[in-house]
Amino acid sequence: MSFSNTAGQVIRCKAAVAWEAGEPLVIEEVEVAPPQAMQVRLKILFTSLCHTDVYFWEAKGQTPLFPRIFGHEAGGIVESVGEGVTDLKPGDHVLPVFTGECKECRHCKSEESNMCDLLRINIDRGVMLNDGKSRFSINGQPIYHFVGTSTFSEYTVVHVGCVAKINPAAPLDKVCVLSCGISTGLGATLNVAKPKKGSTVAIFGLGAVGLAAAEGARIAGASRIIGVDLNAKRFDEAKKFGVTEFVNPKDHDKPVQEVIAEMTGGGVDRSVECTGSINAMISAFECVHDGWGIAVLVGVPNKDDAFKTHPMNILNERTLKGTFFGNYKPRSDLPSVVERYMNKELELEKFITHEVPFSEINKAFEFMLKGDGLRCIIRMDA
Amino acid sequence: MSFSNTAGQVIRCKAAVAWEAGEPLVIEEVEVAPPQAMQVRLKILFTSLCHTDVYFWEAKGQTPLFPRIFGHEAGGIVESVGEGVTDLKPGDHVLPVFTGECKECRHCKSEESNMCDLLRINIDRGVMLNDGKSRFSINGQPIYHFVGTSTFSEYTVVHVGCVAKINPAAPLDKVCVLSCGISTGLGATLNVAKPKKGSTVAIFGLGAVGLAAAEGARIAGASRIIGVDLNAKRFDEAKKFGVTEFVNPKDHDKPVQEVIAEMTGGGVDRSVECTGSINAMISAFECVHDGWGIAVLVGVPNKDDAFKTHPMNILNERTLKGTFFGNYKPRSDLPSVVERYMNKELELEKFITHEVPFSEINKAFEFMLKGDGLRCIIRMDA
Ligand SMILES: NC(=O)c1ccc[n+]([C@@H]2O[C@H](COP(=O)([O-])OP(=O)(O)OC[C@H]3O[C@@H](n4cnc5c(N)ncnc54)[C@H](O)[C@@H]3O)[C@@H](O)[C@H]2O)c1
Ligand SMILES: NC(=O)c1ccc[n+]([C@@H]2O[C@H](COP(=O)([O-])OP(=O)(O)OC[C@H]3O[C@@H](n4cnc5c(N)ncnc54)[C@H](O)[C@@H]3O)[C@@H](O)[C@H]2O)c1
Ligand SMILES: [Zn+2]
Ligand SMILES: [Zn+2]
Ligand SMILES: [Zn+2]
Ligand SMILES: [Zn+2]
Repeated sequence: MSFSNTAGQVIRCKAAVAWEAGEPLVIEEVEVAPPQAMQVRLKILFTSLCHTDVYFWEAKGQTPLFPRIFGHEAGGIVESVGEGVTDLKPGDHVLPVFTGECKECRHCKSEESNMCDLLRINIDRGVMLNDGKSRFSINGQPIYHFVGTSTFSEYTVVHVGCVAKINPAAPLDKVCVLSCGISTGLGATLNVAKPKKGSTVAIFGLGAVGLAAAEGARIAGASRIIGVDLNAKRFDEAKKFGVTEFVNPKDHDKPVQEVIAEMTGGGVDRSVECTGSINAMISAFECVHDGWGIAVLVGVPNKDDAFKTHPMNILNERTLKGTFFGNYKPRSDLPSVVERYMNKELELEKFITHEVPFSEINKAFEFMLKGDGLRCIIRMDA
Repeated sequence: MSFSNTAGQVIRCKAAVAWEAGEPLVIEEVEVAPPQAMQVRLKILFTSLCHTDVYFWEAKGQTPLFPRIFGHEAGGIVESVGEGVTDLKPGDHVLPVFTGECKECRHCKSEESNMCDLLRINIDRGVMLNDGKSRFSINGQPIYHFVGTSTFSEYTVVHVGCVAKINPAAPLDKVCVLSCGISTGLGATLNVAKPKKGSTVAIFGLGAVGLAAAEGARIAGASRIIGVDLNAKRFDEAKKFGVTEFVNPKDHDKPVQEVIAEMTGGGVDRSVECTGSINAMISAFECVHDGWGIAVLVGVPNKDDAFKTHPMNILNERTLKGTFFGNYKPRSDLPSVVERYMNKELELEKFITHEVPFSEINKAFEFMLKGDGLRCIIRMDA
């Protein structure tokens, strides 16, 4: 593929524009300006839909920012690079990511953190960092970016720190789902909970993130993976992800942490919460075994939630941790997650339940709103 | 020293008996029965006073259990051993510990936990595990044990799992303080918080436990050790323990976690809470840096306290842990803590601020009630 004819030029292409909160996206012809210093322009080949897109499209509770181009799970190819970009060149296969890695701040230099001071997710900013402007426009009217990625467009401009260069042999229509939810759940288990072989793991919430956390537990060799969800329909699908037992808190008249303690002789070795519900967060903490249990929180809570537990639950040698994007540093670590897929260690196909052409992107929103399936791949060329 | 004449016999000796809650102890002649299976009888040479003795002696809020022999920080020598005891023999130098290690339960077999299922601290039991009876009596009237140790007696009977055999060259009048509070604070830092060289550490509460936690931070090579206490008098002493900066929450009109975040550019790398105050526990958690900060809780809370924080504080990649006895397994790990002292890595002298003969044991209670000093050594032979 050669892009030499477009570098430095404005590109006219198709994008799915959200003109108003909750209204179907409209495929429009947009102008995409060239990348500036430390930016790259990507040709998106595949993108998928995540809940976060839907939340901000619905804009219930958040400051609405429209018109906007959503999308943050995707796979594409570098079309051109701006000044100072040395890590990437046209033709590189990449995953754009909603959170970045500048490689220079205290977080990027720490072994533990991936919460880059410069490029950490920013949900309120609809423009590029360097000039406070958008690279998208329609007849001169700027269209806002979303979390620095805006992948519901044939071309998009992204900060170089938010782009992971991956193995060009990896099929982008599969590995594109690693841009957000799947890596988040997988990393929560593999990088943060770190269950030992043979241990027991409870997963709260069996959406895509929770099932990816279960996939992590399966890869780590957990002997029992207990899935917890309020929605009984989630259980059948979960079996494909190695979930061995199910608990629906609604089926019990005592707290689910007590049910799990009884099932496991005192508690699980690890738990991973992937619901966003404060009750599930508390249960996930209290259901781990004293002495060694580790609970990991992933779900994004409401503004005025309070995590509340008796301090003896902590003193009895339990550990509570939170994670963001599974503690993966996007540029440094995502290439190796892609390799896990290439080595057939990690299965991605089972997360992909639907596929639509770009022209039918609104169908992907309908599937997600109905809770139908896990990930819907949107093919940009169709 | 030879005990061959007393093995298997009842020993008559002096003990400080608490007849009633809050009343001065009375030195009495007591009878100490021989050890039964898996028990050992110790000759106590030095004991020291810890807050826990005082709490249960005051018996405010707890079920009173009197008459009782308190005491759980001590150094002594094995006088005789009961059936089945193979790890210890008469003449061994030992530290009795209020929590034990059976070496057979899931906790003892786990690398992480020291909360032995069989011998974990039990504050309500005033008798031996095997027969539900006391080994102490006065004219046939049983006197209750305390946390399995009862070291305020010239001789005491202890489960073999609650006895750490140590280097006989170690001076028992110094290392006796490692039986409880000092090891608790030291281990909270060295085994649980694990600060890296050059990191910043906040210590909440500058009593003996908190100062031992500071000593751990000093040993680990922390670059800044921030001491936090409501009592300004604690600050002078704390300097001897490597505490470099002081914060008194009373001096500020914003939460102490915000003060610490400002002092450190976002938060400390590690914090260790040694107060028992729920407010300090919450502040200790919220004052660690996002991305990598680890907070460790040590203090024993009140029954109806609730630990409460916004879940985003957790999700931003902070870790919260609790510890009991500094995560040391008493039999396996205390000998090496004694070696740290022998190697001059750990300083114990600065914790020892008073010394009294056994006959004046009530003075040790007075010092503690006044908040005068840290540890008072009680010499049994004087
Ligand atoms: N930290 C990150 O980087 C990151 C990234 C992506 C998603 N997330 C968060 O992860 C969470 C899960 O995402 P998802 O896309 O899988 O969501 P999802 O809605 O598909 O799945 C959540 C599941 O949790 C279940 N649930 C809700 N409350 C529950 C409760 N109290 N007990 C048990 N189950 C309960 C629901 O029935 C549902 O099946 C969300 O909060 C999302 O915002 C975090
Ligand atoms: N987990 C264990 O194994 C173990 C063992 C021994 C002691 N402890 C506990 O450790 C704690 C400390 O023990 P100690 O003997 O050092 O006690 P101490 O009373 O000598 O010291 C506690 C210090 O905390 C300070 N403090 C109280 N509230 C505070 C607040 N909100 N903010 C800042 N400082 C505050 C006090 O002024 C005091 O100086 C106690 O809760 C004790 O029960 C735990
Ligand atoms: Zn950075
Ligand atoms: Zn997402
Ligand atoms: Zn045990
Ligand atoms: Zn003590």
